[in-house]
Amino acid sequence: MKVYCDDRENGDVLKEFFQTGLDCEVKRLKCGDYVMDDVVIERKTIDDFCQSIIDGRLKAQIDRMVATFTHRYVVIIGKFSDRRAEINENCILGAISSLLVKDVSLACVETEKQFVYLAKRIFERFIKMKGGEKCQEKQ
Amino acid sequence: MKVYCDDRENGDVLKEFFQTGLDCEVKRLKCGDYVMDDVVIERKTIDDFCQSIIDGRLKAQIDRMVATFTHRYVVIIGKFSDRRAEINENCILGAISSLLVKDVSLACVETEKQFVYLAKRIFERFIKMKGGEKCQEKQ
Repeated sequence: MKVYCDDRENGDVLKEFFQTGLDCEVKRLKCGDYVMDDVVIERKTIDDFCQSIIDGRLKAQIDRMVATFTHRYVVIIGKFSDRRAEINENCILGAISSLLVKDVSLACVETEKQFVYLAKRIFERFIKMKGGEKCQEKQ
Repeated sequence: MKVYCDDRENGDVLKEFFQTGLDCEVKRLKCGDYVMDDVVIERKTIDDFCQSIIDGRLKAQIDRMVATFTHRYVVIIGKFSDRRAEINENCILGAISSLLVKDVSLACVETEKQFVYLAKRIFERFIKMKGGEKCQEKQ
């Protein structure tokens, strides 16, 4: 199973991602940053995340993810307290609650390296699960 | 709709939660810390979270949540880098990936106050959604 990575994704993160051993291909994605089958991962730095709340992009992105994929993940890199964007803390928490009730999972990590490891583990677990499902179908 | 809070939950957090205006009741819960209808929220400090990975409690808790509730949330309070538990960073990320692929949503906040606000917003959104569903059923 191939993981498609958006060609607008940060080069350093992509480079790190290519070293995970997953079967990767870079292309322009309509939705998300990393996509495999019905799984999508959107990577956001805390400032990206805040900015996308302010300009309304987050809601549109989330709605697109919900409409297109079964398993949806947003991974935020960095801490709320490190944000430079001028946005109230309650607005961030409100946006997070909105995302959670739409069954988009959130995870927060502190570094790009942690993000890559987490994304790798998520995709690997799905590869294993889907491999198992296929075996069951054959039986 | 009533939110049931586990009677073993931290007293200060409960006190803060009671001030949200939600209809709350304290009782012994079999699963989770805050429960409303088919929604469950488990609150974990970063040290709790790490400890529950080490002693295997997390897996059992997650499996119980998945078997019992439709909407499952784990909220971690604190930063990975602040953990005192002796656990490898990759073990934490592995546990998070396992939780995410089981469709248990994760959110990370920095303070108990942020946790209470986030939990309030999650429950409020479900109350609104379920209210809307009931109106549709009546029509």
